[in-house]
Amino acid sequence: MEKKLSRIKAEQLQDRVVTADEAASWIQDGMTLGLSGFTRAGDVKAIPQALVKRSETESFKVNVFTGASLGSDTDHIFAEAGIVNKRLPFQAEPAMRKKINEGEMLFVDHHLSHTAEWIRTGVTEAIDFAIIEALSITADGMIIPTTSVGNNAIFAKHAKNIIVEINMAQPERFEGLHDIYDTGKQGERSPIPLTEADQRIGTIGIPIDLEKVRGIVFTDQLDSPSNIVPPDEETKIMADHLLEFLRSEIRAGRLTEKLAPLQSGVGSVANAVLHGMIDSEFEDLEVYSEVLQDAVFDLIDAGKVRFASCCSMTLSEPKMNQVFADFENYRDKIVMRPQEISNHPELIRRLGLISINTALEFDMYGNVNSTHVSGTKMMNGIGGSGDFARNARLAIFVTKSVAKGGNISSVVPFVSHVDHTEHDVDVVVTEQGYADLRGLAPRERVEVILANCVHPSYRAQLREYYDEALTRGGQTPHVLEKAFSWHADLAKNGTMLQKKEQLV
Amino acid sequence: MEKKLSRIKAEQLQDRVVTADEAASWIQDGMTLGLSGFTRAGDVKAIPQALVKRSETESFKVNVFTGASLGSDTDHIFAEAGIVNKRLPFQAEPAMRKKINEGEMLFVDHHLSHTAEWIRTGVTEAIDFAIIEALSITADGMIIPTTSVGNNAIFAKHAKNIIVEINMAQPERFEGLHDIYDTGKQGERSPIPLTEADQRIGTIGIPIDLEKVRGIVFTDQLDSPSNIVPPDEETKIMADHLLEFLRSEIRAGRLTEKLAPLQSGVGSVANAVLHGMIDSEFEDLEVYSEVLQDAVFDLIDAGKVRFASCCSMTLSEPKMNQVFADFENYRDKIVMRPQEISNHPELIRRLGLISINTALEFDMYGNVNSTHVSGTKMMNGIGGSGDFARNARLAIFVTKSVAKGGNISSVVPFVSHVDHTEHDVDVVVTEQGYADLRGLAPRERVEVILANCVHPSYRAQLREYYDEALTRGGQTPHVLEKAFSWHADLAKNGTMLQKKEQLV
Repeated sequence: MEKKLSRIKAEQLQDRVVTADEAASWIQDGMTLGLSGFTRAGDVKAIPQALVKRSETESFKVNVFTGASLGSDTDHIFAEAGIVNKRLPFQAEPAMRKKINEGEMLFVDHHLSHTAEWIRTGVTEAIDFAIIEALSITADGMIIPTTSVGNNAIFAKHAKNIIVEINMAQPERFEGLHDIYDTGKQGERSPIPLTEADQRIGTIGIPIDLEKVRGIVFTDQLDSPSNIVPPDEETKIMADHLLEFLRSEIRAGRLTEKLAPLQSGVGSVANAVLHGMIDSEFEDLEVYSEVLQDAVFDLIDAGKVRFASCCSMTLSEPKMNQVFADFENYRDKIVMRPQEISNHPELIRRLGLISINTALEFDMYGNVNSTHVSGTKMMNGIGGSGDFARNARLAIFVTKSVAKGGNISSVVPFVSHVDHTEHDVDVVVTEQGYADLRGLAPRERVEVILANCVHPSYRAQLREYYDEALTRGGQTPHVLEKAFSWHADLAKNGTMLQKKEQLV
Repeated sequence: MEKKLSRIKAEQLQDRVVTADEAASWIQDGMTLGLSGFTRAGDVKAIPQALVKRSETESFKVNVFTGASLGSDTDHIFAEAGIVNKRLPFQAEPAMRKKINEGEMLFVDHHLSHTAEWIRTGVTEAIDFAIIEALSITADGMIIPTTSVGNNAIFAKHAKNIIVEINMAQPERFEGLHDIYDTGKQGERSPIPLTEADQRIGTIGIPIDLEKVRGIVFTDQLDSPSNIVPPDEETKIMADHLLEFLRSEIRAGRLTEKLAPLQSGVGSVANAVLHGMIDSEFEDLEVYSEVLQDAVFDLIDAGKVRFASCCSMTLSEPKMNQVFADFENYRDKIVMRPQEISNHPELIRRLGLISINTALEFDMYGNVNSTHVSGTKMMNGIGGSGDFARNARLAIFVTKSVAKGGNISSVVPFVSHVDHTEHDVDVVVTEQGYADLRGLAPRERVEVILANCVHPSYRAQLREYYDEALTRGGQTPHVLEKAFSWHADLAKNGTMLQKKEQLV
């Protein structure tokens, strides 16, 4: 216990240690919780479980706001227990996805940089309890976060009560890694003084009102490891296409060999594409991103990345073991920021990021769907992709050209849900090639997408749709009554292919 | 001539005065022109006409980049003459619209704050000639713009050659009204130091390389007056709904009586809505917008607006006469900035604007179409609406609930083109009422939109679509094969009404 208490350096809080069950008992039906956690990293682990246990004998629902997706099976058990009324701003869990799509749970799919503004101005429900994982609480009353910062600072500032989960399994040497900056209110704020990815502008911890700390719970459990799959043949080819594009930008004088700070979305494809840089000629790279996945640490190990700014580190189990053990090698190469700062339009535009995110599907004019399967079923959420794509120097979207054994084309006549409009998408990449859409009118975009990105099985079929659309005319020709016919065919026939023999 | 030459204070340029015909003769087939002009204001007037005259005896095409739409009939005669290959980033002219929709002209519909970045980094074609309307050229070699700034500064900086049109009809006393600031390159730039709408951060003119000034042409013609129509009964009701919403924000403690800096889009509806504030209790208002239309000057006259920042002033003829005559009354209340600054995400987010833009249609989940009639035919372009909506404190879209005598519903199951996604739209307003979509899941949004915004003639029809969609399930229920059936019906039957007797 002494070792544990040494993590509570603000001594006046040492008598507030409680069990997870006791802390969970304070939560009432209808309350709104602000939980730490961003893509499985730095989430609170004990209280959510205690809350689910309570639900076995008691009926209640709460709103659950987070940084992004949670680990530790929390979204899964929350969904199964049916205790969530509204979830915001991101999730990525199959059981929860099912409840959302069945209409049994409300999900607000929100730009990850915007949630802090809503909380600051009271647009959403007020936070009753901020429940935040910490390494420690400093003597001067700051919470030191663990492997993510997410929305922790804004939750702590605006919540009526704070509960801290001090996680003894998270290495205390992470102290000093975080950089907490509060923008202040709109209309009263100063420019955010950050002009370089590696700059520090804030404090190493989250300043809190100690009066609001209702309880402290101890846990001892590492984050759930990431569930990304290793690069495959196709993602390697996509990485090659992307590198080829970046080289052409250098040749055109629009980028230098140092490139520009890189942002890469969550997931296996984006990770694989970034991983493809290891054997490239690029050096002295900087990362200014949301989540650092394995690839960024591999790039640091390979001497390719000199600095990485993030709001979360989500690693596979082996990589986590290696990084945590060797952490002193990484300390001066990493900073973790609130998601409002990692994803802030002001900074994304100023730094001129190269932004690489994953599309579910894109259409022949370059609109991108990042969220909805066949326009209706939520996958995970938009996450930070909108924050980045709109404001980056280069908004690049990657996806394999087909899925489900060729039965789904990721390039369609009209995306079934639009998350990134034609105005915000610069480059699309599939394993077939890349299409640089910048400066092109819609009709020009169709030609480069057809020539470079569409799977051969769907080329003639897409051309046929476009030819018919051209007979209707317009800036953006479409046959509206057939615009979603590929998706309708998929629902009816299990394939978007109009003729089975097309399959190449 | 002496009076004219007195406008060229950089004396070494006084021998570069040429006729418009001579200047136009320098322009070669395939060149790219950067023309001044933003929503009919501050456009160059003589050289475009001379160029069109040249096209009567010579065949050529040029790319035409501007701030936004041009006045002086320029887009019209350009379109009729068929001399435009590619037009960027905005237009609003029927003859040009027709050519675009027939596929005879390429149109790149671009966020107005982004074009400067493209030119700076050489994404688009290099500018051969920047042709810029000016009040004068200062002794130290700055171009003083007239009634708009638009992209003038970035065109002048990056063009190979500059031609200046000094317009003797534009009041020389406008000198001192402009504030020219260059952000510099991405990755090397500092924070933009603006924290208040009325702050000056730059120079009163556009610094240029005098060597690049190929010629100076004199003109003597006022801007084309704006073609907005006065407020009508429905737009007045929309203004009332908007004011009601703003009052509820004050009651909720999210705004103060001073509101927050206002941005209002171009056009009659947005103008009318702003005009509705004249008889309201709001005072001491600030405007941080793109275009100042009549309403802003009426609000200044009424003592309601204390300061207005813009990149263009587009006035009706009577208002232009009044404002130009009384200009000393307005001088300390107005500043004009480059469109990159008036529309910059960094500043929009920092200042926390209340952004009011016009929708062509929106759907039951809050996606907005600002550009394409029935998904295919370009109307004007996205303009600055994307710059503002994504980054504002409040992204508000206004439209009448029906058009064409009730045959078109502006609220549809699925918008036929997405310019602003569900993630970026906070409030929608029709003459029926307003729907505050913030913090709502898609299924919740449908209910508030149905209850508050849909015209009674279409309520049952939209409910019917939604009920069928609900049987399919999902986060965002849709019947994809019927999603555009209203638009298809319109094309086939001339009405979106499924049963004529619905008409209320």
